[in-house]
Amino acid sequence: MAFNKINAELLAAITNIVGEDAILSTPAAIADYSHDETEDLVYYPEVVAKPKDTAEVAALMRFCNQNLIPVTPRGAGTGLAGGALAIHGGLMISMERFNQILEIDELNLQATVEPGVITEIFMNAVAEKGLLYPVDPASKGSCFIGGNVANCSGGPRVVKYGTIREYVLNMEVVLPTGEVIWTGANTLKYASGYNLTQLLIGSEGTLGIVTKIVTKLIPKPTLDALMLASFNSNEDACAAVSAIFRAGVVPSALEFMERKGIEWVIEHDGLAFDLQDGAEAFLLIEADGTNQDVIFADCEKINEVLEAHNCRDVLFADTSAQKEEIWRIRRTMAVSVKSNSIYKEEDTVVPRAALPKLINGIKEIGSRYGFASVCYGHCGDGNLHVNIIKAGMSDEDWNNKLKDGITEIFELTVSLGGTISGEHGIGVVQKEFMPLKYTPVHFAIWKGIKAVFDPNGILNPGKIF
Amino acid sequence: MAFNKINAELLAAITNIVGEDAILSTPAAIADYSHDETEDLVYYPEVVAKPKDTAEVAALMRFCNQNLIPVTPRGAGTGLAGGALAIHGGLMISMERFNQILEIDELNLQATVEPGVITEIFMNAVAEKGLLYPVDPASKGSCFIGGNVANCSGGPRVVKYGTIREYVLNMEVVLPTGEVIWTGANTLKYASGYNLTQLLIGSEGTLGIVTKIVTKLIPKPTLDALMLASFNSNEDACAAVSAIFRAGVVPSALEFMERKGIEWVIEHDGLAFDLQDGAEAFLLIEADGTNQDVIFADCEKINEVLEAHNCRDVLFADTSAQKEEIWRIRRTMAVSVKSNSIYKEEDTVVPRAALPKLINGIKEIGSRYGFASVCYGHCGDGNLHVNIIKAGMSDEDWNNKLKDGITEIFELTVSLGGTISGEHGIGVVQKEFMPLKYTPVHFAIWKGIKAVFDPNGILNPGKIF
Repeated sequence: MAFNKINAELLAAITNIVGEDAILSTPAAIADYSHDETEDLVYYPEVVAKPKDTAEVAALMRFCNQNLIPVTPRGAGTGLAGGALAIHGGLMISMERFNQILEIDELNLQATVEPGVITEIFMNAVAEKGLLYPVDPASKGSCFIGGNVANCSGGPRVVKYGTIREYVLNMEVVLPTGEVIWTGANTLKYASGYNLTQLLIGSEGTLGIVTKIVTKLIPKPTLDALMLASFNSNEDACAAVSAIFRAGVVPSALEFMERKGIEWVIEHDGLAFDLQDGAEAFLLIEADGTNQDVIFADCEKINEVLEAHNCRDVLFADTSAQKEEIWRIRRTMAVSVKSNSIYKEEDTVVPRAALPKLINGIKEIGSRYGFASVCYGHCGDGNLHVNIIKAGMSDEDWNNKLKDGITEIFELTVSLGGTISGEHGIGVVQKEFMPLKYTPVHFAIWKGIKAVFDPNGILNPGKIF
Repeated sequence: MAFNKINAELLAAITNIVGEDAILSTPAAIADYSHDETEDLVYYPEVVAKPKDTAEVAALMRFCNQNLIPVTPRGAGTGLAGGALAIHGGLMISMERFNQILEIDELNLQATVEPGVITEIFMNAVAEKGLLYPVDPASKGSCFIGGNVANCSGGPRVVKYGTIREYVLNMEVVLPTGEVIWTGANTLKYASGYNLTQLLIGSEGTLGIVTKIVTKLIPKPTLDALMLASFNSNEDACAAVSAIFRAGVVPSALEFMERKGIEWVIEHDGLAFDLQDGAEAFLLIEADGTNQDVIFADCEKINEVLEAHNCRDVLFADTSAQKEEIWRIRRTMAVSVKSNSIYKEEDTVVPRAALPKLINGIKEIGSRYGFASVCYGHCGDGNLHVNIIKAGMSDEDWNNKLKDGITEIFELTVSLGGTISGEHGIGVVQKEFMPLKYTPVHFAIWKGIKAVFDPNGILNPGKIF
């Protein structure tokens, strides 16, 4: 399908839909929308529109569909796979004005929110009512909940509370044809036809633009405890992970961090944190609940497991400030690593007991290709973010040979029962690796589904496959 | 698409795939496969095949696809919407020989099972290892886990633990073309293309035949407490439901039962259970966990809510035997009601705070149409099973006017934010009501997706839409 460029006449029609104040069309004005948080990628859309309501999104989609203008939906631009980049130019639809929490329904423990609400603002709003919306990616302070839906976002609490997939009940969606549907019902159970809510979650804005989201909420745990355990090796730390669950405990967070990652956070943030000599790997472990005795008992069981796995030392955070400091180390790790080196980030995910093999394999591959790596992530879910660091690699090798190394990492991931991305999505940067896991039959089905929703292929083209 | 009948030549080819011992082709032999647990429906497939492995299922599908023979996949035949009935004749593929638990992976807390494993057998097998697979429909002693996947089954523990959707990680599926794929990866997180696992769950055997299922498992709670609360009215009981969650408690089961349902269980099962005079509605409430103090505290909070909602009396089950008796009342209710009267069962689901309006509305509609009803179900999820009882309704009205009454029930359900089925599926009996909730756009998308998987429309034709 050949797309059309947005000429003056088409721009005038688009402007007419949303109003002049809601249009950006000069490169200077558009610059902020030309990249996300993915390394090195810059693509300018021709025009950015900021519709204010569903009717305007529908009118824009209808118009672009009729005129074969590619449309890229845009949340907060915090994505890590280039999913919100206008790689074919065209119109970017920024959802930033969809920033209202429409309802927090305390009787049903449900909320209705617009997709441009910042995740943390939503979390805080429901927390004020004693409720929990637990899907908190590291970017929660800036990402939009609509982007979380698009990428099937997770974050550290997935290990106990599940991904966003388990919280979204129903969505209002504008289809590429401009038609508007609700995907399901505002119910906790649903067995009424193919589940379009679940199909849309994680579809990276390629099947429709979400304009309203109905989420489930749960009672908020009132107490938590936080531990930071240090180990002599990555392998010891990773091996402890599956043993914690086997001991009957489901922590509310279980995060892995390599020493190097913490060192860079200390350097980047000027943090006064005592990194013990020889400690190579760390587990951040949180237990939450409503009863202090239970939390203590969970911590004791966890501690026993840690000791049985050659743990060096366990720090129990005593104060809110200390908890906050430890969480800050984990949450700022991506930014710190990024600021220290040219890098590429992969979002490997495997069954959790395979983590030791995965991390050892990554180091071994790195040693053969000459790259370093800093690994951290949601080890309780088997989800390891691999930051590949240029280190001593030559520019030529970085540009030409690294891809083979990444291919080996994903081959290993797949051989361990895992897949290409756990929570960042495929976007534009990972799609070349998808055939390592998926067959032509998968691609045919995905493309077939795409064509059902988007016969002209205008919506977020070039993503996933 | 005109289907072909299975003539002698086609039967010979089918027999050749699975062997003569695995073929049933006389009406007497097929009788058990001509109905499920849905009221009044009988459809004979022409032939029943019982393949032993994935390769045989694939060969059968390929053959039927090439020869335009309709295929109906069959689990245990416990469905309540006619989803496993061969309404177009053709070949029924019974999955009864897929009855092996292939692996219980205690390190990853995952299991791999075949779809013909009886749900309770699977639950018991993992429980022996201290693990929980919590998806236990009332039919758990006879239904297959494959049928549970097809219908997105729930059961009483959904309220705390979620539906089967939250436990299935990956599936091996034979597509209508005979191709075999794994839908995803054995991982707790997944952001790698459209989620085919989630799309297949609840698709009622219309997109593919599941041949292996990888499930998540969780640590098994070691303790529980069970309460049975009685109320003067359905409305009081239902109003208490949402208040329990608002008090910060998530029970592991929260079931509603009308007096009439319990009376019929007592009559049918000869149970010596003291039904208090004047008690019209009951809530069965279970709290589970690993700490007795927490469970007691939860029960106290629940008790306070019950008292604030005009509860008459709360029975705490003291012994395992007493717990078992109370659960037996709930679990045998469907069978007891069925044995007492001509009936039709609907599977309404609404946001839980809408339950009082739903149940009052159902009674009001019944009074206008002349039917009685016995309601019970998973009120913690807003999921109410409505058993419509013929009572004094004339045969003519039952046959001709009842549909209007059911339409009104579903119109009410939809107006309250709910949908046609929470966990029984649409199958053949509910599909006429789907337009009450869904638009032509939904139907077009569903049919489009169906055509992607099943271009010849051979797999479970005539179901859902």
